Amino acid sequence: MSAHDEPTLNKKNIYTGKIIDVQLHEVELPDGKTSTREVVKHPGAVAVIGLTDEEKIPLVRQFRKAPEEMLLEIPAGKREKGEEPITTAVRELQEETGYKAAHLHEIAQFYTSPGFADELISVFLATGLQAGPSQTEADEFLSVEEWTLSDARAALRERRLRDAKTAFAIQALLLR
Amino acid sequence: MSAHDEPTLNKKNIYTGKIIDVQLHEVELPDGKTSTREVVKHPGAVAVIGLTDEEKIPLVRQFRKAPEEMLLEIPAGKREKGEEPITTAVRELQEETGYKAAHLHEIAQFYTSPGFADELISVFLATGLQAGPSQTEADEFLSVEEWTLSDARAALRERRLRDAKTAFAIQALLLR
Repeated sequence: MSAHDEPTLNKKNIYTGKIIDVQLHEVELPDGKTSTREVVKHPGAVAVIGLTDEEKIPLVRQFRKAPEEMLLEIPAGKREKGEEPITTAVRELQEETGYKAAHLHEIAQFYTSPGFADELISVFLATGLQAGPSQTEADEFLSVEEWTLSDARAALRERRLRDAKTAFAIQALLLR
Repeated sequence: MSAHDEPTLNKKNIYTGKIIDVQLHEVELPDGKTSTREVVKHPGAVAVIGLTDEEKIPLVRQFRKAPEEMLLEIPAGKREKGEEPITTAVRELQEETGYKAAHLHEIAQFYTSPGFADELISVFLATGLQAGPSQTEADEFLSVEEWTLSDARAALRERRLRDAKTAFAIQALLLR
């Protein structure tokens, strides 16, 4: 613990949910005063940018309730308890797109919204893709599209890709 | 509303906070079944990647309670009610780093965590920077560093930059 930590003096559990928990922390600031911090706890997530042998990127179109919008995203999902990120990556890619990857490696890891949430996301690059049947979860309704990198780049510039991890991953491919 | 929307059948307000609100929605799925969606409402945010005349990027180091980590991030802050993103951008850049920008333009806009939150972030590029005094809010404790783009790129590759908007913005500069 450094002088710049914000130790919790009191913690109130606001909500324990299916995916997130919400906590309210009373913290001590570096100057000795106190403040409150709202914290959303999340199990962490994994996202996969795949590149097919035809140099296409599988993208998933689905309705997202929080923003109330259809979004186009790279395949992703939350980690199960104790699950290694690469296991989640293999599972989510196959469930959402049907693809199995010969090669998967982590290209980045970051917090999506550190101001209020602890969600850490691992982004994987998947190559050597073999098509197969997809199998989504009972409450997931999505369709898969395959985009060229240059179409994805144009969509990003024109604000038609509105998901952070997807924007990051497409730029990462462009910078390879 | 399309066939792929998830209309809310019932909504429960779980928490009304300082920065976030939390809601639980019972929704109708496209197949007629129902499910629940946990939704974190957020006012939206703005982030600013600045480039000084010496080609350096101002970065802010601060403790983030949610991940319990010191993070290095581009200057950012949440939008006040009804505030235009560019107004937030001008304010946050000056408050956190002291810089005034001659030129500010939005380079991207995306949802940080659309699976559970509606936070939309606008990312601005700021150039023509003029140094001045910084003035942070009462509960903000941060220090400013100035990094070269190549150091920032190396830090990104080595997982030493762990914030999504910062990772995105550095890539965007590299791709200019």
